[in-house]
Amino acid sequence: MRYCALSTTLAAALAWPVQAVEVAPPNWWAGMVSPTVELMIHEPGIAEASVKADYPGVKVLSSVRQDSNNYLFVTLDTEQAKPGVIPLTFTFSDRDPVTVNYQLQTREEGSSQREGFNQTDVIYLITPDRFANGDLSNDSVAGYVDKADRDDKGGRHGGDIQGMIDRLDYISDMGFTQVWTMPLLENAMDAYSYHGYSTTDYYRIDPRFGSNELYREFSQQAEQHGVGVIMDVILNHIGSGHQWMQDPPAEDWINNDGKFVPTSHRREALHDPHGVESDKVAFNDGWFVPTMPDLNQRNPHLAQYLIQNAIWWVEYAGLSGIRVDTYSYSDKAFLSDWTARLMQEYPNLNIVGEEWTVNPLITAYWQAGSQRHDDYESALPSVMDFPLQATLTEALKNSESWSSGLRTLYEILASDFVYGDPYNLVVFADNHDMSRIYSQLDEDPALWDMAMTTVLTMRGIPQVFYGTEILMANPGTEDHGIIRSDFPGGWPDDKINAFTGEGLTDQQVWAQDRIKSMLKLRQQYPQVFAGKLTHYTPDDGVYVYFRHTEHAGDAKVMVVLNKNAESKALPLARFSSMLTGYDNIRRLGESQQPLAQSLTLPASSATVWIIE
Amino acid sequence: MRYCALSTTLAAALAWPVQAVEVAPPNWWAGMVSPTVELMIHEPGIAEASVKADYPGVKVLSSVRQDSNNYLFVTLDTEQAKPGVIPLTFTFSDRDPVTVNYQLQTREEGSSQREGFNQTDVIYLITPDRFANGDLSNDSVAGYVDKADRDDKGGRHGGDIQGMIDRLDYISDMGFTQVWTMPLLENAMDAYSYHGYSTTDYYRIDPRFGSNELYREFSQQAEQHGVGVIMDVILNHIGSGHQWMQDPPAEDWINNDGKFVPTSHRREALHDPHGVESDKVAFNDGWFVPTMPDLNQRNPHLAQYLIQNAIWWVEYAGLSGIRVDTYSYSDKAFLSDWTARLMQEYPNLNIVGEEWTVNPLITAYWQAGSQRHDDYESALPSVMDFPLQATLTEALKNSESWSSGLRTLYEILASDFVYGDPYNLVVFADNHDMSRIYSQLDEDPALWDMAMTTVLTMRGIPQVFYGTEILMANPGTEDHGIIRSDFPGGWPDDKINAFTGEGLTDQQVWAQDRIKSMLKLRQQYPQVFAGKLTHYTPDDGVYVYFRHTEHAGDAKVMVVLNKNAESKALPLARFSSMLTGYDNIRRLGESQQPLAQSLTLPASSATVWIIE
Repeated sequence: MRYCALSTTLAAALAWPVQAVEVAPPNWWAGMVSPTVELMIHEPGIAEASVKADYPGVKVLSSVRQDSNNYLFVTLDTEQAKPGVIPLTFTFSDRDPVTVNYQLQTREEGSSQREGFNQTDVIYLITPDRFANGDLSNDSVAGYVDKADRDDKGGRHGGDIQGMIDRLDYISDMGFTQVWTMPLLENAMDAYSYHGYSTTDYYRIDPRFGSNELYREFSQQAEQHGVGVIMDVILNHIGSGHQWMQDPPAEDWINNDGKFVPTSHRREALHDPHGVESDKVAFNDGWFVPTMPDLNQRNPHLAQYLIQNAIWWVEYAGLSGIRVDTYSYSDKAFLSDWTARLMQEYPNLNIVGEEWTVNPLITAYWQAGSQRHDDYESALPSVMDFPLQATLTEALKNSESWSSGLRTLYEILASDFVYGDPYNLVVFADNHDMSRIYSQLDEDPALWDMAMTTVLTMRGIPQVFYGTEILMANPGTEDHGIIRSDFPGGWPDDKINAFTGEGLTDQQVWAQDRIKSMLKLRQQYPQVFAGKLTHYTPDDGVYVYFRHTEHAGDAKVMVVLNKNAESKALPLARFSSMLTGYDNIRRLGESQQPLAQSLTLPASSATVWIIE
Repeated sequence: MRYCALSTTLAAALAWPVQAVEVAPPNWWAGMVSPTVELMIHEPGIAEASVKADYPGVKVLSSVRQDSNNYLFVTLDTEQAKPGVIPLTFTFSDRDPVTVNYQLQTREEGSSQREGFNQTDVIYLITPDRFANGDLSNDSVAGYVDKADRDDKGGRHGGDIQGMIDRLDYISDMGFTQVWTMPLLENAMDAYSYHGYSTTDYYRIDPRFGSNELYREFSQQAEQHGVGVIMDVILNHIGSGHQWMQDPPAEDWINNDGKFVPTSHRREALHDPHGVESDKVAFNDGWFVPTMPDLNQRNPHLAQYLIQNAIWWVEYAGLSGIRVDTYSYSDKAFLSDWTARLMQEYPNLNIVGEEWTVNPLITAYWQAGSQRHDDYESALPSVMDFPLQATLTEALKNSESWSSGLRTLYEILASDFVYGDPYNLVVFADNHDMSRIYSQLDEDPALWDMAMTTVLTMRGIPQVFYGTEILMANPGTEDHGIIRSDFPGGWPDDKINAFTGEGLTDQQVWAQDRIKSMLKLRQQYPQVFAGKLTHYTPDDGVYVYFRHTEHAGDAKVMVVLNKNAESKALPLARFSSMLTGYDNIRRLGESQQPLAQSLTLPASSATVWIIE
């Protein structure tokens, strides 16, 4: 929790003492679309205070307490206010008043119209503790129990924000244009805190990663590299080390009376026409693990806190988007409000929700614009395309048959009519919570190439997990600590350095080049990858699709997966509606040739062709 | 093709000769909701004739020819007409006129309001050639090449309509209230005709099965047994022995210019937002096999022919419903019209379409009332629940895990929100086109019991394939001729007789009794099975659901699947929202007991409990 800076001059000018009081959000901005902000004041006995704001254009709309004596929720109307310092005075019946100097800051120009990540982007997913250690001095920090231990697969390894800043050249040279970092907020947990999903302060970057200011610096430097920053936001739960566990604002702040009851993980219960209320509750209100207390977003003050927190980080750090962890586990009505408020403030922002199910009916439910069976409203622009991820892997691993193989990949895409906007889904071959794609595909480079080619050319916004470009794997284990191994070269003493290529195997170099070549292709033809997908029913182990604009004459990209163990000729007559009017074709990385009657597909290959 | 009966007295009264001319439909009825009927007249040179109808209230609305000289399409308006014989006179420029006496018959009272099969029913699916041979004299019929040969698994075995009539007692005693027979229309094919799916005359029962009159008799006698008859209607294709192949009414009558091009079977292409038109055509216009020419229902006269043919059979034979073969392979717009016209004539009829896919998004698309991604309209009341069938089998066979087993059964049902009416789906464990359920479940009686208990108590209208009640199997083969083996006791010399129980194994007797007991339960509590489904997320290999009305105090049925290899206690507290207010419980076939704190579930069991 951050403290409001003292304004001693102002304090001196007033009769009352100014003191450090916890206020969240720690500041706000003038000129927001929604002019009200609800401050959560945390201070012993504050609930009994009455509050006044002495500042032109600022009104105290309400001052509300909950069960605890130590919290007060003060709603300010800032609509008519100019940037400056608002003195908030809290008076008590039995002691001296307290003044908090609350900053109303100036927004960055164009902040509300910021562009979120989109189809022209490719997202690089980083586990900050495991990517690059740019500041050895913060590997362990006094006051934080969980110290660095690189030999412990579940421990902190020292990677940090400075490491990511130092490697922005690599990231942008590869062709990534967005970075999604696993959570960076404080996780003051006794152990197993490196992953960041046990928030203990919603307004403070964990000092072992850096500081709020360094995070903002990272975002600014990334922007100079043409790279946007996507924050990983956790609405569903906190870490058990959060002060709310000792001193909750309200008795209903944490689900299941603050005690561990496991979630059923049965997200289907939310939509089930035959289900019972108790099964919805078992899903929504259950906790992941005992160290992750589950937040009750039905409490309107907690809901407001979480809404403002996300807006605060977008505004403070200049984010290009948000990834929402364990999306559907939060309260449904709250998610509707949270997304609406975020999109109201930033109409062009992108937000992607994690809904881990292979059923597109359920992922689609959360996306804005999807046709729903009920009157639920959602402003969530994007969801992670888990159905495609699971299907792609199975389609490549399973042999071709009537009901398996590439046809299942075709089928899942043919079901895209369920989505409000299939082109705004985030597509990926793997992520930080599952086996690495190279391991999922039994370390078969040809299948890896098919998977990554598909992800990088398919409709949607591709996301690549750090290390996938150098075939990182987790042989023989599903341990998250191994899946999220250190990126070679991120530590001073690393013998292998994937940033420079030093020590990489030929196959790793090939993989890295392959990814890079496809990212460069996307940058060369952004309008194509912001355009349409047209695909053909798979035939004889071959799947063909095109990316293209709707404008005749524009370049098109043709992708062909050949799962056959032998080379095949692909007659092009079937694709005449895509090819008519075009004369030339070149395979990615090769030179242009006249368009012929057929193509030759290498055995077990993913080939990318540019048609002009 | 049937011929209109001659009216010699009328012929004598007229100057013109009355002669046998093929007319389809062979008669019509006065007082239909849609007062027009289009007659397809088939006669050499008839296309050049002009036509008059000399009958009060009958108008010739149009007379249209197509490419062939031998067909004329005459549309009559019968709105003001009373039943009787309509003389239709065809005059030619170069020869004597011809008169056809066309019958406008009287409808059965209440015909238009006939009730179709519904949730209180259970459907028995019969392969007529393989169920019971009631008339040995028609096993082979002169003029039909495909003769009876019971030793040929793909040959005709002699089962017939008389056999089904003779066994109505068995059918109704078992508790079945509907019979869906595989097609009975003429299949004048050289070989492999027993299955009935190669229609060569849309208006004639195959003489090896009986006659039109006997089919009507079957329907009437079935009704007296409380059993409805569901006709298997094929809109998509004919048999290559149909006269349309030699003498097509129009050049576009058969898809792909009358030549065999296989269908892609990729039904997803119809819905695919990324698909191409050619992939839709490849699905819709392709043929199943060279002996099944694919009809082009975009020809409006063929469309009208097929609409009227179905109405004719409902009216003529007094049907309670229709099962439509290979539903989505027919033209989409035609299916919209076909269903609308059928439901216009018979608003309470039920029609179930076969759409073989495991994707409920696609089955649901065709059902009336489903939310669709486009503006397609369908009046089809029901679809076969293939997604549930496939999932049920897998759920039982696969071990319980995070992503397999009973949870998949729960999940598919939790997706029921895609359906216009999930309660009107036809549910089944197997049918005539797949391995028998006992074989699918590796001849495990406990799994068979779980499958059949689920099918017979789940939301929807259960369908049981003949022989499933005696554990018929197809070990080691998927050959349809073996799957559709002869029902024991259906032939005079059969040593085993499942109708009487003679020669059945103890396990077969157990199975038959088990099915019967559940069908009796359904008849005892029709309101329960016409009521709601409420289910609970599976837990620890146990899945629990209830069937119930919405009226407090009514009996409820609780079904519990226990996949564990050991007996389990099932605490009932979780189900309090279903059980509160009830005092007594009895397991199906056992006596009533006070409702206790928990139930004891036998190992690997499906138990059915009645709560009152």
